[in-house]
Amino acid sequence: MTRAARPGRERLSEAATLRLSLLLRSLARLAEEGTATVSSEALARRFGMNAAQIRKDLANLGEFGVRGVGYDVADLRSRLASILGLDRARVVVVVGAGHLGQALADSGSFNGSSFRVAALFDVDERKVGGRSRTGVPILPAEELARSVAELGAEIGVLAVPAVAAPGAAERLAGAGVKGILNFAPATVGPFDGATVKNVDLALCLESLAVRLSAAG
Amino acid sequence: MTRAARPGRERLSEAATLRLSLLLRSLARLAEEGTATVSSEALARRFGMNAAQIRKDLANLGEFGVRGVGYDVADLRSRLASILGLDRARVVVVVGAGHLGQALADSGSFNGSSFRVAALFDVDERKVGGRSRTGVPILPAEELARSVAELGAEIGVLAVPAVAAPGAAERLAGAGVKGILNFAPATVGPFDGATVKNVDLALCLESLAVRLSAAG
Repeated sequence: MTRAARPGRERLSEAATLRLSLLLRSLARLAEEGTATVSSEALARRFGMNAAQIRKDLANLGEFGVRGVGYDVADLRSRLASILGLDRARVVVVVGAGHLGQALADSGSFNGSSFRVAALFDVDERKVGGRSRTGVPILPAEELARSVAELGAEIGVLAVPAVAAPGAAERLAGAGVKGILNFAPATVGPFDGATVKNVDLALCLESLAVRLSAAG
Repeated sequence: MTRAARPGRERLSEAATLRLSLLLRSLARLAEEGTATVSSEALARRFGMNAAQIRKDLANLGEFGVRGVGYDVADLRSRLASILGLDRARVVVVVGAGHLGQALADSGSFNGSSFRVAALFDVDERKVGGRSRTGVPILPAEELARSVAELGAEIGVLAVPAVAAPGAAERLAGAGVKGILNFAPATVGPFDGATVKNVDLALCLESLAVRLSAAG
């Protein structure tokens, strides 16, 4: 398999990325069910997407599908996974072995064909040496730099209190992770070598509440 | 305080809602620091927003600020909170007292001036009767309907395994919550009386990974 040609990836917007991630999941479902070919209309109907948008997103990435026949599910799935860089399992480490960190380390969302959580880190000596429910080891925070290198971790997840987040993020970036997913309500970075993505759980709740206010 | 006039709320897009939520938080920070008035430019510089977008969002909601002087921080904050329906604490219940549920029940993001988690629910008898770290009681799942009514809960958070999510969501909607925040990787609803918002944690990780692929 060649990795040289990944057309269009650098042009993907955040919105297009999300649509294509969802499309990739839908294709995985169809593959599990034994579906060999699918049209954009059938995809749209089945998974609540927009057929024209699917065709446009894929046209931006190269040549897929045959007019009147549809897309080859297996082929589209593997090419899309490659384009999105989701065709191999990236190693993830989670900093903070509290409830949130353990929930993420054990979640199916963070452990599948594209990601694998290899370690949790904590400063609490009572937690260090233990394992999460699914067996992810809890390592001492001071071993973070060495472990990230040994494990080949590319992504670090911040599940620490806000006050600890900037320091933990700096250690992750210094240890060489390329991406940081920040669940702490604190500003971290920016860093030269690492991309930061913030997940704002309060904002999820607020936007739901505003929709309730508008409706009620 | 009158609640009759909430101009524009029903016209708010999801994107505008998120921008205004962030603006409201920024105003809270300024108020804590004792800042009385602020210009859109100063807000934009300080909090990494867009000054023209701030003025446009606020103009859509009514009359705010004085040209050349700026916005009265306290006044804008209280009017914005009222418009967004974030000027009172809504009662939240969390279904699922596993790691994720307990993390959410204890988080500052879910307990503040706009939200308060009043109860966790679980089917596990070993958990029921206990409390989360911050003291949120863990109640038996079969008491959900009665408790939601007694507590006046408006929002239910789903922190259960995917297989349990549709049933739990139906019980929440049946119990009368107006909004459901779904963390489970499962489709729930739609319901007539309750708005569902899905939080897709896998997608957060995927969109970070795609950005890494594009950069590397």
